[in-house]
Amino acid sequence: MIANHKFGACLPTFGNCADRYCLGGYGGGARTMAGMLDSALEVKGLDGLELVGNWHVNDRNIRKVARMFSDRGLMIPMLVPDLWTQAKWGRGSLAAPDARTRRAAVREVQKVMDWAAELGCPYVDVWPGQDGFDYGFQADYPAAWEWLREGLFACAGHSDKVKVLVEYKPREPRTHCFVDHVGTVLFLLRDLDRVGVLLDAGHAMQGAENVACSAALLAHHGKLDYVHLNDNHGDWDEDMMAGSVHLVGLLELTYWLLRVGYKGWLTLDIFPYREDGVRAAIECREWMEAMFRAVKRAGMDAIAEVIGKADACEASAMVRRALGMQGACGVGEPRVTGGRRRRKPRRRSPG
Amino acid sequence: MIANHKFGACLPTFGNCADRYCLGGYGGGARTMAGMLDSALEVKGLDGLELVGNWHVNDRNIRKVARMFSDRGLMIPMLVPDLWTQAKWGRGSLAAPDARTRRAAVREVQKVMDWAAELGCPYVDVWPGQDGFDYGFQADYPAAWEWLREGLFACAGHSDKVKVLVEYKPREPRTHCFVDHVGTVLFLLRDLDRVGVLLDAGHAMQGAENVACSAALLAHHGKLDYVHLNDNHGDWDEDMMAGSVHLVGLLELTYWLLRVGYKGWLTLDIFPYREDGVRAAIECREWMEAMFRAVKRAGMDAIAEVIGKADACEASAMVRRALGMQGACGVGEPRVTGGRRRRKPRRRSPG
Amino acid sequence: MIANHKFGACLPTFGNCADRYCLGGYGGGARTMAGMLDSALEVKGLDGLELVGNWHVNDRNIRKVARMFSDRGLMIPMLVPDLWTQAKWGRGSLAAPDARTRRAAVREVQKVMDWAAELGCPYVDVWPGQDGFDYGFQADYPAAWEWLREGLFACAGHSDKVKVLVEYKPREPRTHCFVDHVGTVLFLLRDLDRVGVLLDAGHAMQGAENVACSAALLAHHGKLDYVHLNDNHGDWDEDMMAGSVHLVGLLELTYWLLRVGYKGWLTLDIFPYREDGVRAAIECREWMEAMFRAVKRAGMDAIAEVIGKADACEASAMVRRALGMQGACGVGEPRVTGGRRRRKPRRRSPG
Amino acid sequence: MIANHKFGACLPTFGNCADRYCLGGYGGGARTMAGMLDSALEVKGLDGLELVGNWHVNDRNIRKVARMFSDRGLMIPMLVPDLWTQAKWGRGSLAAPDARTRRAAVREVQKVMDWAAELGCPYVDVWPGQDGFDYGFQADYPAAWEWLREGLFACAGHSDKVKVLVEYKPREPRTHCFVDHVGTVLFLLRDLDRVGVLLDAGHAMQGAENVACSAALLAHHGKLDYVHLNDNHGDWDEDMMAGSVHLVGLLELTYWLLRVGYKGWLTLDIFPYREDGVRAAIECREWMEAMFRAVKRAGMDAIAEVIGKADACEASAMVRRALGMQGACGVGEPRVTGGRRRRKPRRRSPG
Repeated sequence: MIANHKFGACLPTFGNCADRYCLGGYGGGARTMAGMLDSALEVKGLDGLELVGNWHVNDRNIRKVARMFSDRGLMIPMLVPDLWTQAKWGRGSLAAPDARTRRAAVREVQKVMDWAAELGCPYVDVWPGQDGFDYGFQADYPAAWEWLREGLFACAGHSDKVKVLVEYKPREPRTHCFVDHVGTVLFLLRDLDRVGVLLDAGHAMQGAENVACSAALLAHHGKLDYVHLNDNHGDWDEDMMAGSVHLVGLLELTYWLLRVGYKGWLTLDIFPYREDGVRAAIECREWMEAMFRAVKRAGMDAIAEVIGKADACEASAMVRRALGMQGACGVGEPRVTGGRRRRKPRRRSPG
Repeated sequence: MIANHKFGACLPTFGNCADRYCLGGYGGGARTMAGMLDSALEVKGLDGLELVGNWHVNDRNIRKVARMFSDRGLMIPMLVPDLWTQAKWGRGSLAAPDARTRRAAVREVQKVMDWAAELGCPYVDVWPGQDGFDYGFQADYPAAWEWLREGLFACAGHSDKVKVLVEYKPREPRTHCFVDHVGTVLFLLRDLDRVGVLLDAGHAMQGAENVACSAALLAHHGKLDYVHLNDNHGDWDEDMMAGSVHLVGLLELTYWLLRVGYKGWLTLDIFPYREDGVRAAIECREWMEAMFRAVKRAGMDAIAEVIGKADACEASAMVRRALGMQGACGVGEPRVTGGRRRRKPRRRSPG
Repeated sequence: MIANHKFGACLPTFGNCADRYCLGGYGGGARTMAGMLDSALEVKGLDGLELVGNWHVNDRNIRKVARMFSDRGLMIPMLVPDLWTQAKWGRGSLAAPDARTRRAAVREVQKVMDWAAELGCPYVDVWPGQDGFDYGFQADYPAAWEWLREGLFACAGHSDKVKVLVEYKPREPRTHCFVDHVGTVLFLLRDLDRVGVLLDAGHAMQGAENVACSAALLAHHGKLDYVHLNDNHGDWDEDMMAGSVHLVGLLELTYWLLRVGYKGWLTLDIFPYREDGVRAAIECREWMEAMFRAVKRAGMDAIAEVIGKADACEASAMVRRALGMQGACGVGEPRVTGGRRRRKPRRRSPG
Repeated sequence: MIANHKFGACLPTFGNCADRYCLGGYGGGARTMAGMLDSALEVKGLDGLELVGNWHVNDRNIRKVARMFSDRGLMIPMLVPDLWTQAKWGRGSLAAPDARTRRAAVREVQKVMDWAAELGCPYVDVWPGQDGFDYGFQADYPAAWEWLREGLFACAGHSDKVKVLVEYKPREPRTHCFVDHVGTVLFLLRDLDRVGVLLDAGHAMQGAENVACSAALLAHHGKLDYVHLNDNHGDWDEDMMAGSVHLVGLLELTYWLLRVGYKGWLTLDIFPYREDGVRAAIECREWMEAMFRAVKRAGMDAIAEVIGKADACEASAMVRRALGMQGACGVGEPRVTGGRRRRKPRRRSPG
């Protein structure tokens, strides 16, 4: 748990992370699922792990997987249908130009929904990462939009026990993904009440969104079902540890999660390529706990009051207080009142 | 006209463009409205000019302005309420935290709608550029969303003769604008049937959208009412001449405008800081006409067929043919068929 | 002073900031130099103000300006030749294609160096912001490079009392500025020993540099003469308050300034468009002082040791400790050692 | 050959491209070196292929590889030491914090230089992609800089027959690479006369450089030894086909290659994930040949004259003429002269 929130991680956090150059992986982490689960246990407070369909769970191992988790007291908050690790999805899944591929994608999601039901997992995460385009004149945009909606509709109706969530991302693995922005996903699902949204913090940052704003808008429209935590430098989904770059943004996200009454999971989606996954996960947890403490220190009401003033200077001072970084200096200056400053200068004696 | 489309420009195209460093302007262009209109006449085919409320048109000069346009055979396709050039809008207009400012913004739009009706201008362009935030903890996001919608609703109902369009933009003058993406504007207006969208090509590029995709999605949902043409290098709204960077993107946009049957204006929103505005506008027109010729050369059906294949290599070859850049070489190679390539190598003699 | 560093600001911090939309300014701040100086006095610890040649200081007012500063006990750490606010520099200054403009730019810098000498100001800041290009085929790159070097050489030799510094920036007001990166400025000045560098934090961020890295490289080559503090969201020179986005980056910059023994000024280059300039400057100072405290809390040697390990998890934990955000939790976990983790899982009882 | 330039490709162009999601590859291309070489033969005009040390060539297969190339009449213009595909380089190679790793990296480069000499290959490409950092406080920047220089010095002196080139890139696989910009590489090598530069077009674009400018600056300082062609959307090294996005930029690059008298290779570094590698390479060649034709059409002298005027409108018109896109319209307008426009308006009859 992190401050009353279930705390999760994607399984590969504890595995051997690879990129397109070092395809064999940077060598950290465990190589078996049991090994990864055991590593996960080393992270105090971790409640569960996301799994990817076919890779981590399938018809043959589902009983065994269930046992491996229950033996360790771990939950499975999310199953992710594999619509993006195999060549067959390279030109799209739910919105592929090829109709058979689209049907196969729907079946893939439905199959994973069945597994989720069997495992007592409440969500599947549909990330249509391969649904998009790289070059001009490579996609029929309105058609793709309709295919996406049809596919999601077909998936959503498949089970009452498992909710379909859509995860948006502006780009990668395609140079342009169709479901690219918080606004796009809200519009896509505007009348699909049974489908929710997974907000991945780094995806929002990659799209130059302010994550707190995206979370608040999703919640305002009943669509904030699940949150992925990570960080990046703003242009790419670098899947860094939460707390490594955007501290103010993380504080603001934490505040809004509390304000909108978010009760869902806080799950790490990080790629600790060159880091020890256990220590990386612990760092993320520590930063998140520090952020919850910081919000508490500042006070929900006081923060709301600052926001209401729309005053960047007050906000800045409040952030510093929340983080516990306020020093003894500054006393006597007309800093944090937000009211009228005295304009009378204090004349100094000549230097 | 550009290929059956009315061709417009924003009035300041022919004025003296300034930026935050060179506030007095880079010195080109005319200094009076009459001078700017006369300059506009030098651009063959230009049909009309957008005006900004208060600055270009107001209660005192509206009759005179109408006459200046009619005398020159120019139309006014768009009036833009000034919600962004005065300090009073600095913290927002329709979504300002201050309720009086919000009401003033609605009245401002309504007043400009009245002027538009009087001038026979069919649209007003609501660009909520100041509605957003710069820093964390500076905005109440759900409240701002509702204020925006309330304001737009109040504006939309004001007149049957003039349609309100919303122009989206990811950032500038705020570091984050609320209406930041094509998805956001579609969701914002999902049930406001009387409000349409102005697609500014450069704003879409600034948000890493593919402009053609955005145009197609807007049209697919009945929201492509008006188009601003310009270009930039991808990260900022540099308001460069159309045709200066994204030639393939401009070709694809042209194709989709034809495909969705767009009948509206093609209006330049450029800032020719260091260029002669007349020549800059002519360059844009020439590029656009070249693009319409290119689509014709390739053929609408042939392009649709290429898109249907979702094949980047075919798309690439088609673009080259459309632009008239196909050479004599390449004959005999298995290039553009898209079918199975012979895998049999042609063994060369040793070098 | 901020932690033994002279603390400065650009004069317009206390004026009325404008952008290209709101050319008349957002209405804050004083309108006269005396008013701005008086405002500056309200910022405790502020030691001096940068002035722009011609606008703030010129042949007619130089005596009066000197008196206005000395009366208030304020210094002038920097004069900035105006090579960017007038239309005549719109196509370049030191590297303009027009030879007369280039000569005029050199004379402008030299004139301002004379004023600086007269005022006891040690530096002039040559920011060749207009030297660059917007479109393809608009610049003769090698020629521009040589013109820049010739101009800087001519400026550098003009006075022994005043040092010429070059400020680099990737873009704006041109879409591409010639002196665009820390590497570029180092190469440009590699054999111009009398010319130094002004590092503007936000410009480095705009170019996706890590500011601490840029500062360390400049210092390593004897070129870190002066520092501008501000912040942005990474893509544009938004001139926000220091401490508003990149807290970790600011902490790391602070550490490296101490490590390389930087003795120069810490000067704010912010545009508080919608903020009170006095309060904005105080916020920046508070953040900087908090950062110096944080480095002290962590300890220079301990930080160096962490850096030496190149371990992101240790760095993360160290940052949290430095900021004073470490909580009581996490005790007993193998978190911050960096050594071998126990791989033995703690088996939980079944859930 | 492409217009008197040797035409090359990286071997994986014809293989099975993978990314971090689809680690098994998108399924195109050959799986053996012989298969890839045979595919390469299908690309008319292709003169040679780059190989990566250890993966493609090593002590055991070097004779066989030489034979495979000579049998097919193909050259090997470049060997690339593998400093980035194995976990052991994950924290750096020539600039790794670990001294043994640095020594191993130097030996790796030297070993590949020996292979290059044996194969008659003139260059090795040192791409220090893993030399950088991801997080704050993770690198000792000045030390890394010196390690890089020491390593390059040690490599450069190893052989008279093979020249070491450095390839720069702003980010990926690290979030920040040390050799990140054309200015950085020029400064790094300012006194290392035996080391040259490989300019990768996409890497320059990723860093918001104008590729033509980077090529011209490198050539101006005697450092333009080799060119990689590809394209992207500006923020990431997407390794797309040349000619897919930046047509004007590619035209300008072509012009400057001719103007500076570049005689080296034009080698594709593309990742045709979802494309047929043969067809993708042919597309790139076609675009490049079209660009050489376009420069010829416009004329070197005429282009130089346009550049000399620094006039964006003339440049725009010239680009359109070069591409063969000039239509019949526009006759009689004061468009392309660049001189004084008539300001006399043509008064139209009232509409």
